Amino acid sequence: MLGHLRISHYHWTFSREIFKERREMNSHGENMLSADNQQERLDPNWITGFVDGEGCFYVGINQHNRTKQWQLLPEFRIVQHQRDEQVLHRIQKFFGFGAVTVNHGDRKEFRVRGLENLNKIVEFFNQNKFQTRSKQKSFEVFSCIIKMMNNKEHLSEAGRKKIANLIATVNKKVIPKYLISSETVRQNLARDKIQSDPLSD
Amino acid sequence: MLGHLRISHYHWTFSREIFKERREMNSHGENMLSADNQQERLDPNWITGFVDGEGCFYVGINQHNRTKQWQLLPEFRIVQHQRDEQVLHRIQKFFGFGAVTVNHGDRKEFRVRGLENLNKIVEFFNQNKFQTRSKQKSFEVFSCIIKMMNNKEHLSEAGRKKIANLIATVNKKVIPKYLISSETVRQNLARDKIQSDPLSD
Repeated sequence: MLGHLRISHYHWTFSREIFKERREMNSHGENMLSADNQQERLDPNWITGFVDGEGCFYVGINQHNRTKQWQLLPEFRIVQHQRDEQVLHRIQKFFGFGAVTVNHGDRKEFRVRGLENLNKIVEFFNQNKFQTRSKQKSFEVFSCIIKMMNNKEHLSEAGRKKIANLIATVNKKVIPKYLISSETVRQNLARDKIQSDPLSD
Repeated sequence: MLGHLRISHYHWTFSREIFKERREMNSHGENMLSADNQQERLDPNWITGFVDGEGCFYVGINQHNRTKQWQLLPEFRIVQHQRDEQVLHRIQKFFGFGAVTVNHGDRKEFRVRGLENLNKIVEFFNQNKFQTRSKQKSFEVFSCIIKMMNNKEHLSEAGRKKIANLIATVNKKVIPKYLISSETVRQNLARDKIQSDPLSD
């Protein structure tokens, strides 16, 4: 039937973009209940559902400018347009840690850093399981890395390489710069050793 | 501190893109629990959280090819990459209606059409409130239109115009073609009437 409806059409989606001018909208007197007053504590299942769609488990590997040491920076975050910043503050209140800050432009994020709080995040999502396969998988890789960091494995080069390999295993499209770099460093050290050996006593 | 970590960095995000090759991933023998077995009934709060992030209330206004009649097509949908199609089937099972179908390309959607089922969707989200302002607002506009359709207001031009105006009120960036078109039709009819009157008996 719909195949016949072709000459002209107008599709309208109730997107998140449509509420930029809330005061104007409300002035039309539609039967609009305010979500502002829904300030009761969030339900753990709601949190998991929301994070299943909007959450992100992230690991940065940064090299220090001066010391050239590699540093692991795991992070949990939820990014929203600033119009929904309020819900990020409620999530922050729910967990009792983390921060709401600018992501970029008009986007805000709730983010959790630091092993102590990330362990609580891991514990929470172990108790409140994700329902999408992809989020559950990414969470399991993330929690595996957190576990390794708890065991201080990331402080050794072997541990960092293991973590970088774990990253490389699941993210096949990106060549881990850490692995490339650490290999280059090793080759350079070996080369330097060969070159410097004849000059040593 | 992080400001000093500038020379080289590698950021890795556990995105939904990373699980394209699941069999390869699993062959590495990581401690990956499968989400496949989590087939228990979904929690209503999880549904609301997931829809708060991923759901969409949508209204199409299509003009029939032959009759030129305008038709309203309200729809509720959740779009996911096909890797997470399984969760859409579980949501379909939860509600007991709707269909899982192709959205476009590698994306699938759970969609609900038809007043009878959309009334059940409205009832569900009236009982299980959204927590983001934007989703709650879009839901309220959508349920207002569904209510008008229940009252058969959409069958009259006045009702359709009222609904189109409601759409125009919240979506200021798009000029509703229905409103333009219905005004043009009216003007053409008036013009035709003036032109045809002298020829009539």
